[in-house]
Amino acid sequence: MAERATLDRHDPRAVRQAIREGRFRDFTNHVAPDYVQGNLMIVPAHAADAFEAYCRANAQALPLLGRSQPGSPCIPSLSETLDVRTDVGAYTVFRNGDLSGVTMSIADLWRDDLVTFVLGCSFSFESFLRRNGVRLRHLDEGNVSAMYRTSIATTPAGPFRGPLIVSMRALRPDDAIRATVLSASRPMFHGAPVHIGLPGLIGIDDLADSYGGHGLTTLRDDELPVFWACGATAQMAALHAGLDLCITHHKAHMVLTDRLIEEMANYG
Amino acid sequence: MAERATLDRHDPRAVRQAIREGRFRDFTNHVAPDYVQGNLMIVPAHAADAFEAYCRANAQALPLLGRSQPGSPCIPSLSETLDVRTDVGAYTVFRNGDLSGVTMSIADLWRDDLVTFVLGCSFSFESFLRRNGVRLRHLDEGNVSAMYRTSIATTPAGPFRGPLIVSMRALRPDDAIRATVLSASRPMFHGAPVHIGLPGLIGIDDLADSYGGHGLTTLRDDELPVFWACGATAQMAALHAGLDLCITHHKAHMVLTDRLIEEMANYG
Repeated sequence: MAERATLDRHDPRAVRQAIREGRFRDFTNHVAPDYVQGNLMIVPAHAADAFEAYCRANAQALPLLGRSQPGSPCIPSLSETLDVRTDVGAYTVFRNGDLSGVTMSIADLWRDDLVTFVLGCSFSFESFLRRNGVRLRHLDEGNVSAMYRTSIATTPAGPFRGPLIVSMRALRPDDAIRATVLSASRPMFHGAPVHIGLPGLIGIDDLADSYGGHGLTTLRDDELPVFWACGATAQMAALHAGLDLCITHHKAHMVLTDRLIEEMANYG
Repeated sequence: MAERATLDRHDPRAVRQAIREGRFRDFTNHVAPDYVQGNLMIVPAHAADAFEAYCRANAQALPLLGRSQPGSPCIPSLSETLDVRTDVGAYTVFRNGDLSGVTMSIADLWRDDLVTFVLGCSFSFESFLRRNGVRLRHLDEGNVSAMYRTSIATTPAGPFRGPLIVSMRALRPDDAIRATVLSASRPMFHGAPVHIGLPGLIGIDDLADSYGGHGLTTLRDDELPVFWACGATAQMAALHAGLDLCITHHKAHMVLTDRLIEEMANYG
């Protein structure tokens, strides 16, 4: 009988290998806590410079961590062994501005003109917040943060435009203050919150109605909703851009890099 | 006819001289905006070391900016010309743990054993916040921030103990976030807020019921109440300590120093 190796969930290389082999399909917010995770955005080369400009114009939502050469599924600055075609747990495929499907590999969709972007993700600052004593109830409950579409418009660039997407954490007020101060020091992981406390002011009328329909959407009486700009903003921009092909990670299946959070914290 | 000099309200030396001569009796939050203002606490020498220990144990409320020699009404490190007996617009006098009276000079109360403390004040960080674009409605309306007694206990030292007093500013959420991050970088002026958004959690059941009965106590629908530790905490401690004599500034009549806010910002 073949012996099945125990997965070292703290090692991003091991988790990526397990994803590639179909042995790991969970959300990634509970693995490799010391390492940077990122949002995935893959676009045709003709739109790549415009997308980079869009990221730079909306850096709080889309902090640029890496960009591949056209046709290369690798970003050596983030990992020597990452293959973006197989190493993400699930992908969302957009065609001509419509959701085309969700898949567990994009090897068969790969083209020589595709350019991959990896953007900072709040999972990296959640690790940082927790290490500094901030209580994150959604993690304690095995959940992820909920996302919401806001009434805040991003700054357009080329074909890319659309509303800002935010992630929400339910925090006790003293933790909200600490999380605000701590995250402000981490611009590569979205920086300070964009909103706190009064979601109706940014177009969120019902916390139960989250973008993507997942995540912790309830508040306790002693909690405030605190909102950070979210890399899922790129997915909305992909829909608006109407590209013939665009691929992102799906839900909370992020790109695992081999860069330590502490090492990248002050990058950029 | 004697010509009355126009008061240079930006110059703390000129305002102190006007206070000394009875020509200025307003709250000080609209004068000398570039200069550090402080809370005043005068105690008998036998209690001075205990009060300093109390300040250090509750540094967010009582950041120590200066301490005089016994019997001296001067603190040269804060101003070459300050005389604390005459240069504050109004004083509160406590005797044996009771409020004894409010006066405009304490020259006739002065004793050779009195020690003066000056503690950081939120007026200094209000200037800093405004210069960095935070909208402070209470200032726009010519008001001061309201203070509240909380259910949070300070750390006792010697005879000094009592509840934490906080100051409240009504801020729009984006300003609340910026004010939180900015004030966190200024520990000498109370640092980050101690609470945001849910005042009932810190024992404040009615914003209209402020400590001292003054200040902006109303919220608009698009504002959050944000609370910082306040130097008035020393006044409550003075009441609890029951000293035979204790003198503080009265309400928003603060000690004006000649130290620039920017110069002192990273002090301590």
